[in-house]
Amino acid sequence: MASLAFSTRVSAVARSSARVRAVGVRSYSSKSVPLTAETYASRVQRNESFKKLEEDDVAFFRGVLQDDHGVITDADDLLFYNEDWMRKYRGQSSLVLKPKTTEQISKILAYCNEKKLAVVPQGGNTGLVGGSNPVFDEIVISLSSLNKIRSFDPVSGILKCDSGVILETADQFLAENGYIFPLDLGAKGSCHVGGTVATNAGGLRLLRYGSLHGSVLGLEAVLPDGTIYNSLDSLRKDNTGYDLKQLFIGSEGTIGIITGVSILCPSRPVAFNVAFLAVSSYEAVQKVFVGARRELSEILSAFEFMDGKSQVLTARHLKLDHPIESGEYPFYILIETSGSNKEHDDEKLETFLGNAMEEGLVDDGIIAQDDTQVKSLWSWRESIPEASTIGGGVYKYDVSLPLADLYGLVEEANVKLAKAGIVGLDDESKPVVDAIGYGHVGDGNLHLNVCVREYSKEIEAVLEPFVYEWIQSKKGSISAEHGLGFQKKNYIGYSKSDIEIKMIKEIKNHYDPNGIMNPYKYV
Amino acid sequence: MASLAFSTRVSAVARSSARVRAVGVRSYSSKSVPLTAETYASRVQRNESFKKLEEDDVAFFRGVLQDDHGVITDADDLLFYNEDWMRKYRGQSSLVLKPKTTEQISKILAYCNEKKLAVVPQGGNTGLVGGSNPVFDEIVISLSSLNKIRSFDPVSGILKCDSGVILETADQFLAENGYIFPLDLGAKGSCHVGGTVATNAGGLRLLRYGSLHGSVLGLEAVLPDGTIYNSLDSLRKDNTGYDLKQLFIGSEGTIGIITGVSILCPSRPVAFNVAFLAVSSYEAVQKVFVGARRELSEILSAFEFMDGKSQVLTARHLKLDHPIESGEYPFYILIETSGSNKEHDDEKLETFLGNAMEEGLVDDGIIAQDDTQVKSLWSWRESIPEASTIGGGVYKYDVSLPLADLYGLVEEANVKLAKAGIVGLDDESKPVVDAIGYGHVGDGNLHLNVCVREYSKEIEAVLEPFVYEWIQSKKGSISAEHGLGFQKKNYIGYSKSDIEIKMIKEIKNHYDPNGIMNPYKYV
Repeated sequence: MASLAFSTRVSAVARSSARVRAVGVRSYSSKSVPLTAETYASRVQRNESFKKLEEDDVAFFRGVLQDDHGVITDADDLLFYNEDWMRKYRGQSSLVLKPKTTEQISKILAYCNEKKLAVVPQGGNTGLVGGSNPVFDEIVISLSSLNKIRSFDPVSGILKCDSGVILETADQFLAENGYIFPLDLGAKGSCHVGGTVATNAGGLRLLRYGSLHGSVLGLEAVLPDGTIYNSLDSLRKDNTGYDLKQLFIGSEGTIGIITGVSILCPSRPVAFNVAFLAVSSYEAVQKVFVGARRELSEILSAFEFMDGKSQVLTARHLKLDHPIESGEYPFYILIETSGSNKEHDDEKLETFLGNAMEEGLVDDGIIAQDDTQVKSLWSWRESIPEASTIGGGVYKYDVSLPLADLYGLVEEANVKLAKAGIVGLDDESKPVVDAIGYGHVGDGNLHLNVCVREYSKEIEAVLEPFVYEWIQSKKGSISAEHGLGFQKKNYIGYSKSDIEIKMIKEIKNHYDPNGIMNPYKYV
Repeated sequence: MASLAFSTRVSAVARSSARVRAVGVRSYSSKSVPLTAETYASRVQRNESFKKLEEDDVAFFRGVLQDDHGVITDADDLLFYNEDWMRKYRGQSSLVLKPKTTEQISKILAYCNEKKLAVVPQGGNTGLVGGSNPVFDEIVISLSSLNKIRSFDPVSGILKCDSGVILETADQFLAENGYIFPLDLGAKGSCHVGGTVATNAGGLRLLRYGSLHGSVLGLEAVLPDGTIYNSLDSLRKDNTGYDLKQLFIGSEGTIGIITGVSILCPSRPVAFNVAFLAVSSYEAVQKVFVGARRELSEILSAFEFMDGKSQVLTARHLKLDHPIESGEYPFYILIETSGSNKEHDDEKLETFLGNAMEEGLVDDGIIAQDDTQVKSLWSWRESIPEASTIGGGVYKYDVSLPLADLYGLVEEANVKLAKAGIVGLDDESKPVVDAIGYGHVGDGNLHLNVCVREYSKEIEAVLEPFVYEWIQSKKGSISAEHGLGFQKKNYIGYSKSDIEIKMIKEIKNHYDPNGIMNPYKYV
């Protein structure tokens, strides 16, 4: 059988650090992150209609929280909340609040709304567009202490939990009950369930389990005026009125704070397979995808692609040899299947891979033989975001494009950067390390990462608005799953019409007339 | 093997008329449907702030449509649009408009909004809560002439079509391309794609393909002031701003008219199996369901239950012997699997059924051997709605309940009706034929049908508010998939809190300040 051509040996790689990244253990270089307000001084200024924090305000919040650990004012402790994970944005908040109940959040927001104190809701702070960090002196409301599983129904598979539960914690709890969280992403060890809902995260298995707009059944959220909106239903179907919770999915903390989530979880598959393939062209990537969807159909749970350049950086980051040892290839594919019968799944995968080899689409490949190897192969995909920061920083573009055009953006970006003479993989004098591409082919979602040694206006000028204009010309989206945040606030016009933007702004004004919720971002 | 106990013979039943019901071919009894305004005179009165239609208005509309066939004023022709399918509601509209373009709808709505002429958007008129029929003299805007497939991308599986395309037409088009519409329901031969979106229809395969909130990627809709909102994206992921299209999914024509739909369609499975089982108790239904979800997992595409009484009526309606000939059973189950490998699916289903027989959960059963038998078995489930009207009418309650409580409502309703002495299956002097239960166990969705010989206040007094209070006590939903429409307008409080109702009303007022869109209904 053709599938015998596949090697079954996988280097024993420890589980990627990207998956177990825990809050507070990041290593900071000595170089401090410049203030967002200074880097983008020409773009954004403090809204002087917002009140400046005073001692009386802090005293009020201490009274609400009744817990000194929940009120952070120490400069060193504030740093984690002010800075983003990419070390690109830094705010100047002097106060972080960590409420433990929905009622406390209600009191905090009602007060802030009345006093016009601006706030930034923050989950695991793993966002990629500066959406969860302050820009000026906004108060950070961290959800990390609102972190209880509320209930789980093993018959329906419906989980209800606080928004601050860490995604991996939720998934481990579900695993013990034979279920799986319908979303998975590299930052699962740090990101919050509520944060994934607030940003409408997509992640690695959207292909199989669909978007959060379908799987989230109910939400609890606090509106800017302190109103507690509770639709934490445990029903799969409910057609009584507009589905208002949908507005909060992907709202990035701009119209309220999500405090509780009710979500439908699928049965945990008992059989998993992961194959890692090397192919010669992006055209082959597309052909393998079309075949996989047809032949693997209901058991296909991930189809990820990575360019060769991303794997070079990842090998350096992980300090390991690549699992496919027969040479460097321009493209790699990770295919995951999951199902209820290992024998059936193995047979489907082997038949599919055999056909792909016979058609000459696949040059080399490997199939994981046990759970350790499954994790090892996934780490070559999931470590790319961290590997991208190997030089010091990364400009991330998370875009939706028609499948045929997906990789064209990476090629074009590389041409532009090369022309500007600013790229050098091993040339420390050049500001750009490399521009790499990878992502979720199954969802038409590309991640273009421009890996840099420093953030600079010169690099930005080469990339923007070029990237956005290119996406617009292909009728794509400038943000497939990362959201708008601070980074893309001014670029929504590349993906939305004037009428849509007007309607979005109307909704923002409807729920947050004082504009205190996550200002300077989104719209 | 235990599965050998299954008979493989299925009576050759013609495809259910419920599935091929076409617009305009209903047979009306001589007895006319009473006017909604008279039946519910104590509950609803004409809003006198709405303008009454005049000749000038009709002339304007004729000018917009430029087509005499698109302007209906003849009393006989109006009847179809004024009456609902259950023959329970009848409005008094003197004008039906059938625009052919989104721009025409924009002009019509802008005019109506300015003049305060109330309108009712209408799809295939297959709704079950009187939502698509006028109550007084509202103008009906039928989408039936806006019925073109706009585009289909065979790589991504994304279909874009006008809202007036008939569901079955869309599905047949997709079948030719190897895809399937992610929604199926009994009325597919008449209902419109846009109508299913406007009512957030659930149907028979939600268990497998999820809700429309997940699969609809974009919408085009006309707002009451004539604004054309176009988010007809062809992207699987787009996180740029609030997902406003979600508000229109399930809005029942109260904030705008959906004119175009972009929807993600899954690959069409190549292997289908249908099993029809007889079981002795509702407890056994639940146990078989839990087992099916575990063992059939990714290939399970429908799990429907029917009580024995529903099958008695269906046999009379279809004039056929029941496919399970070994006697009458209290409950029946229809299980559908669909996948990419017939051999694998057969093996999974046989193993599962063998286990269920061995455990004594299943008393008898049958597996379809070919496509004709698949359709035949489905007709015993899909014909129930039509069979329910065998006596002349039906009170339909479409509810979500926790699985354990699902059938309790039917039992309680029967006790109440029996106590009132108004039920007689074959006693023509009694107003109620029977109260039957069936539905989508996989979604916690029960249909309680109270089959009647006439609609009367006496019957309604026995059923309401009893049914709604019972649902509220179990924290269920008074409308799982049918919506609120006219029937449930006043009962939303049984499923939504005061805060939620307030927020829903605010959205209605935000988009439709003059209240011209589908008045007297929803909220």
